[in-house]
Amino acid sequence: MKMINELKSVTMDTICNAKSGHPGMALSSAPIMYTLYNKIINAYPRDSKWINRDRFVLASGHASSLLYNVLHLCGYNIGIDDLKEFRKLGSLTPGHPEVNETDGIDATSGPLGQGVPMAVGMALAEKKLATMFNKEGYEIIDHYTYVLCGDGDMQEGVTGEAASLAGNLNLNKLIVLYDANDVTLDGPLSNSFSEDVAKRFEAYKFNVVTLDKWDIELLEKTIEKAKKSDKPSLIIIKTIIGEGSKYQGTCKVHGSPLDEEDLKELKIKLGVKDSFNYSEDSYKDFYEHFYLRGKRNYSKWKKKVKEYKEKYPGEYEFLCRCLNNDIDFSSLDKCEIILDKEISSRNASKIMLNLLCDCNRNIVGGSADVAKSVMTSLDNSSFITKDDFKGQTINYGIREFAMASINNGILLHGGLKTFGGSFLVFSDYLKPALRMGSLMGLNNVYLFSHDSIAVGEDGPTHQPVEQLAMLRSIPNFNVIRPSNEGEVKFAYKQAFSSDNPVAIILSRQNLKTKYIVKEDEFKKGAYFVKYDKDSRYSIIASGSEVNLAIDVYEMLLKDNIKVNVVSMPSWYMFEKQSKKYKKSILGNYNKTITLEMLSTFGWSKYGKYNIGVNSFGVSGKASDVIKYMKFDINSIYDEIKKIIK
Amino acid sequence: MKMINELKSVTMDTICNAKSGHPGMALSSAPIMYTLYNKIINAYPRDSKWINRDRFVLASGHASSLLYNVLHLCGYNIGIDDLKEFRKLGSLTPGHPEVNETDGIDATSGPLGQGVPMAVGMALAEKKLATMFNKEGYEIIDHYTYVLCGDGDMQEGVTGEAASLAGNLNLNKLIVLYDANDVTLDGPLSNSFSEDVAKRFEAYKFNVVTLDKWDIELLEKTIEKAKKSDKPSLIIIKTIIGEGSKYQGTCKVHGSPLDEEDLKELKIKLGVKDSFNYSEDSYKDFYEHFYLRGKRNYSKWKKKVKEYKEKYPGEYEFLCRCLNNDIDFSSLDKCEIILDKEISSRNASKIMLNLLCDCNRNIVGGSADVAKSVMTSLDNSSFITKDDFKGQTINYGIREFAMASINNGILLHGGLKTFGGSFLVFSDYLKPALRMGSLMGLNNVYLFSHDSIAVGEDGPTHQPVEQLAMLRSIPNFNVIRPSNEGEVKFAYKQAFSSDNPVAIILSRQNLKTKYIVKEDEFKKGAYFVKYDKDSRYSIIASGSEVNLAIDVYEMLLKDNIKVNVVSMPSWYMFEKQSKKYKKSILGNYNKTITLEMLSTFGWSKYGKYNIGVNSFGVSGKASDVIKYMKFDINSIYDEIKKIIK
Repeated sequence: MKMINELKSVTMDTICNAKSGHPGMALSSAPIMYTLYNKIINAYPRDSKWINRDRFVLASGHASSLLYNVLHLCGYNIGIDDLKEFRKLGSLTPGHPEVNETDGIDATSGPLGQGVPMAVGMALAEKKLATMFNKEGYEIIDHYTYVLCGDGDMQEGVTGEAASLAGNLNLNKLIVLYDANDVTLDGPLSNSFSEDVAKRFEAYKFNVVTLDKWDIELLEKTIEKAKKSDKPSLIIIKTIIGEGSKYQGTCKVHGSPLDEEDLKELKIKLGVKDSFNYSEDSYKDFYEHFYLRGKRNYSKWKKKVKEYKEKYPGEYEFLCRCLNNDIDFSSLDKCEIILDKEISSRNASKIMLNLLCDCNRNIVGGSADVAKSVMTSLDNSSFITKDDFKGQTINYGIREFAMASINNGILLHGGLKTFGGSFLVFSDYLKPALRMGSLMGLNNVYLFSHDSIAVGEDGPTHQPVEQLAMLRSIPNFNVIRPSNEGEVKFAYKQAFSSDNPVAIILSRQNLKTKYIVKEDEFKKGAYFVKYDKDSRYSIIASGSEVNLAIDVYEMLLKDNIKVNVVSMPSWYMFEKQSKKYKKSILGNYNKTITLEMLSTFGWSKYGKYNIGVNSFGVSGKASDVIKYMKFDINSIYDEIKKIIK
Repeated sequence: MKMINELKSVTMDTICNAKSGHPGMALSSAPIMYTLYNKIINAYPRDSKWINRDRFVLASGHASSLLYNVLHLCGYNIGIDDLKEFRKLGSLTPGHPEVNETDGIDATSGPLGQGVPMAVGMALAEKKLATMFNKEGYEIIDHYTYVLCGDGDMQEGVTGEAASLAGNLNLNKLIVLYDANDVTLDGPLSNSFSEDVAKRFEAYKFNVVTLDKWDIELLEKTIEKAKKSDKPSLIIIKTIIGEGSKYQGTCKVHGSPLDEEDLKELKIKLGVKDSFNYSEDSYKDFYEHFYLRGKRNYSKWKKKVKEYKEKYPGEYEFLCRCLNNDIDFSSLDKCEIILDKEISSRNASKIMLNLLCDCNRNIVGGSADVAKSVMTSLDNSSFITKDDFKGQTINYGIREFAMASINNGILLHGGLKTFGGSFLVFSDYLKPALRMGSLMGLNNVYLFSHDSIAVGEDGPTHQPVEQLAMLRSIPNFNVIRPSNEGEVKFAYKQAFSSDNPVAIILSRQNLKTKYIVKEDEFKKGAYFVKYDKDSRYSIIASGSEVNLAIDVYEMLLKDNIKVNVVSMPSWYMFEKQSKKYKKSILGNYNKTITLEMLSTFGWSKYGKYNIGVNSFGVSGKASDVIKYMKFDINSIYDEIKKIIK
């Protein structure tokens, strides 16, 4: 078919001109992408962030060249010149799709496995928002979510985690298209994979259809039918990798541009003469189908929203607030912090989370099956089930990675805010999705509790050591470790008003409120809890160790030694401060002691002396473990005395 | 049944006495564990590391109390007193099973999902070693691998990744027992999970049997039958969580000890009066079944090995070397390093890896489908398939996490050494298994290539920034980033002779051999490449930035400024050196500049000035990206000049 041939041809021009890219799937998926955008997808390039557009995730981000070409034909802000700049510095067409760089892209993708979970998140958001806002005759939120994935995604476990939840929640407006070309970078898929994928997805409670070859009419019908399914759908399309290349069907065509001769011969086969040139027919085809369909539906929707606004002004106003990511912090502001109260920061977190969620019904979240330990339960809200999306709690199951990736998808959708909880030590499982969220600038809030060796009995597998360093090292990721209830309160305000991911690190053990923190101090990321201009040394601590530092301070006072104590809940927030402020807090590097009951990795930035835990923990009663690790008050006092001399 | 009742009773004593632990699965799995150890498992407590024993992994590590009780009955070195010390500091019975702490434990477990992959690794090792050593009539390696898992494991994606590979490789001596008690920490499993697990595992090509309730005779028969299957087996056993407790069947019994009344009533139901007391019948039962069976088989095996030694002395000697983890480095030692040669460290790695694997057939490994990019292909060895385990290459598929976890299992089995490759940026996916390997002290070798923003076109999703910091922060984990071919060679020697995990970090781009490194210098983790006692400043660099530092050194020389240049391939190795040596290298903190084209996170430990990349990368030609990120030679020169003034 002429249009598909042109699409294939210019996509190959795009890759060959860049001398970099992945022709294999770009060729095998061209008919799929053509069908999806030309025949199915409902979106409008004049308002590319339209909340009710169909969403599309290219899970196999390496087929970006194909996506850019299709978006170009659709009328998004990608010109032929941009295609010629594919994979070049500063272009609108980077190596893998990036949501913040290019018009029409709904998700950054590339790291395999995370595309389907993000699509699951989008489909979940659609159902939730539809439940919140739709009225009879006014389906303000009513769209589909499509994802195109490949064999790699099917091998990654997180795809299975997310698909399993999609089946459990019956996200029937999720349609997964699987380009099954049976070849991976290293050779035939069968070298490592011999699953019956259809059967696996049936086990997840998906509607599964397998097409033995591509046929755009059949594919269109199949997708239309899948849209009517009462289950999420998987459409498996058997294709040939690099179809048309002399290396078709082999891994040689996966990730390297076609050579000159191969490109020439392919073009002859496709009946295309020019380079980087679409015929008027192609443009017209996409204009008449994709563009006008989108425009029509967009206008209809706009009209409906206008009526909705009149008929349901309260709901409309709330919808606007949701789309604007507004959060009402008044309940938090009213929450009084009481001196000397003893409460674990995970329990303080529960108070703040409930206060916040009670008056912000646009917040959804939950935990990876540790709600009762991380204290993420919402007392006044039910949990989301396949039959009822009214609740705010998502039971992600024991699927940490999928939780984070699904939340990325919910946030990409827009209209909702998210939180997700786990034990700090298991933040390891989420790392790839934390990074993606940071790269995309998504305001996911993570609640990681059991934040030190004070976990106790569960032992080294459950005691975090190096996790804080890992989290702090992620660019654009804010880690807040509050020292008491007051800091927890402000951590929540900071977390839910950011435009990047934020992790709040929570203790299992009680922490006493030894002082009342002020919001403006907290917001600076570090501030003095004890200060005397005559102090020779400073102790910088975070979380549970701030009280420990205060205790040491008091012991030293009895020795007639004055030290400053700094609470540093967030390196990220501290680093945003003026040089002057930072200097005022940090003082003399050689007289600064950092104190945190986790790895010292990274702390040398702030002080010469770093007291922490640099080996794996041990199983035992928390107080015994702390003593064994020399983090009891007497050991810390001794160690600091040795430093101060 | 009396024995099981006693097992349940003392297991509950164990938990209640500790006031900590997980009764839910300990009760639901008691009949399964009884059957498995009493009737099936072939092992011998007098030689608990016997290479041909059946392996057992308690994937649901939180049921440790039950495992300790069974091991006690079996005659392992766990006394009643040790059970009374459950979860106490320094006891033989920590909160979760730990392979290096307790007799009879085959794997550390607890973090959900990683049990099945470790068992897959063990089963793979068994097949590989059997292929290497068995002769007709002399099945020296011939055992089964069992794993007991729960609902949590089934939700974690990595279980699916590993099971899929087990199906592909047809690891028919792997038997997965699944205690399907349908309840998780947060409530009924159905809240987040409604899969047909049997169907899913059939899709993976498993032999699947479902037992609707526990029945030890039926279970024994089912396992015996599964042993004869030509596929890996999944036996699903429908149980009741906390069976016998007043909270049975609910999440209340998952993770908190029974209260006094509940324990008392349970004991009445079980017909057990005493605490911490097994009857003679129980001991006799395990002695006659488990112990004597093991002893008998062990003696037979010993006799066979004696004959094998005589008949096949060469093979026997090689077997001993394998079990001893001996590696022959002679081929590496002979490898000459040539000055001025330009080669990427990933290509240098390929040379060393092949040299090493050619003369050490006990090394197995591969990559997560990036063999041609990370250069992990072995030229003289085939890859392992379900029909042929002669090769050394494992095609793990696009399953990074499972790769690392499976390799942990292979190493736990013993007899083999492993390597696993991926892009550095995707080390994120492996993190939970890297941590477990470090905790267990397993000598897994990781090859992570494409080690900086110099990845270029693939863009920020594929450009590592914070990954080195993440890896370096893991306790007991050695990260080596070699600067040239000579350092790659010694990195291999170090890596394969360690008793902990080692990652070798490799460049995509060429690196020139500007000097010949000496092994004793390299082994110190950091050494001078350029040194003059009159130098005021030092530049510490790793990997590709060592040459950059040398270039800057030469530019500065022209300005009549002398600086020292330190190559620091490994922080881990450097930290093991004497204080004196470290001081000699580090010199003056305030005059030290560190240089690495990745996050500076952590580098402040070694110098005041840290030059690196602290934001996500961008897509573009490598040289353009490097310039944009101000890591070209001129920008670095300018920056260093500014510091030196």
